Amino acid sequence: MRDAFHTDLDTLSDDLVEMSRSVAAAIRSASESLLRSDEDQARRVVAADTDINAFQYSIDDRVVELMTQHQPMASDLRFILGSMRVAIDLERMGDMAKHVAKIGARTGCRMPGVRDVFAGMADVANRIADKTTAILRTRDRLDAAQLDLDDDEMDALFARLMALLGDGWRHGTETAVDVAMLGRSYERFADHAVRIAQQIVYQVTGEVHLDRRP
Amino acid sequence: MRDAFHTDLDTLSDDLVEMSRSVAAAIRSASESLLRSDEDQARRVVAADTDINAFQYSIDDRVVELMTQHQPMASDLRFILGSMRVAIDLERMGDMAKHVAKIGARTGCRMPGVRDVFAGMADVANRIADKTTAILRTRDRLDAAQLDLDDDEMDALFARLMALLGDGWRHGTETAVDVAMLGRSYERFADHAVRIAQQIVYQVTGEVHLDRRP
Repeated sequence: MRDAFHTDLDTLSDDLVEMSRSVAAAIRSASESLLRSDEDQARRVVAADTDINAFQYSIDDRVVELMTQHQPMASDLRFILGSMRVAIDLERMGDMAKHVAKIGARTGCRMPGVRDVFAGMADVANRIADKTTAILRTRDRLDAAQLDLDDDEMDALFARLMALLGDGWRHGTETAVDVAMLGRSYERFADHAVRIAQQIVYQVTGEVHLDRRP
Repeated sequence: MRDAFHTDLDTLSDDLVEMSRSVAAAIRSASESLLRSDEDQARRVVAADTDINAFQYSIDDRVVELMTQHQPMASDLRFILGSMRVAIDLERMGDMAKHVAKIGARTGCRMPGVRDVFAGMADVANRIADKTTAILRTRDRLDAAQLDLDDDEMDALFARLMALLGDGWRHGTETAVDVAMLGRSYERFADHAVRIAQQIVYQVTGEVHLDRRP
């Protein structure tokens, strides 16, 4: 049987998985609102971001509680502090989903070429979000390391998007800026997931790399 | 005389001040490289970002050390965990300075109107960076709360910049996107400073607001 302390650690871990599920739902819904130009759905994504933020505060509170009551050492401490970091990145991923919904609602993506890239980014973002939830549950360092490849795919899609915004662009500067910001939100969404994956690798192996920041 | 634990807390506080000074130097130098189209200086800002990242790791290590050796309670714990958060935001501010230098080197800011706005953003960013260093030293909650006003000024400049990218824009889409990304980097730089200020208010007063995220 697990003692009270380890039961509390399990709960912290479960909370992160739950928060990650909310983020996955948010980006999925944000992409749908963008691809279907559904303003109502976009508004729901923006409203739901408050819940994701609230998740972070409750995880912070739990961290302080765990620290105060148990004075954890070594690997437990690493896990608890790491959880705080993971929650920060999940919260930012929620922000990126909110940005996609917000900018998507005013811009849409009916411009030729752009729609395909966003559909691709949406797929990669969904996959990344689901994998993030999975590795938060399994703590598998190999799966965590794999997230880099999905991030490369996202970067390649972002480069394709930016290439569309060159001399041949015929849809106005304001739309170009919105399209670039949308792409950047997806790219940053992926970056935060990579940070989470690196945090998990660190927690499992104790290995830090100075170049670990995406 | 301060005991060993409180001397360690002082050192942690000094490290944050030192890190904040590096960030202030980075944004100042990044803005100069942008406003003077100085590519060499831009390269130096990009290279120096590694030092800012290294700062964060050493602060993280110190946090773990403090936790393990002293099992701090209540307000000390709040200060230590808060310092970890502050270091995360400072590291991102360093990233924003790097972005300004990088994009600035390829785009410049000779477009009429744009230069003035960037000069204004540079001033506000310098002021914000210096105030961040100051409040990390003094922990003055009123000065910390004041940072909101500087952030409002930054947001207004960003809005002015985006207004330039409308129908009257005659410098190509790619440049427009770069200008928007530059503006966004300044705006996010300010947002992270506001988070730090809110963190300090929280540490000093224990007050949290659900809307505290910029």
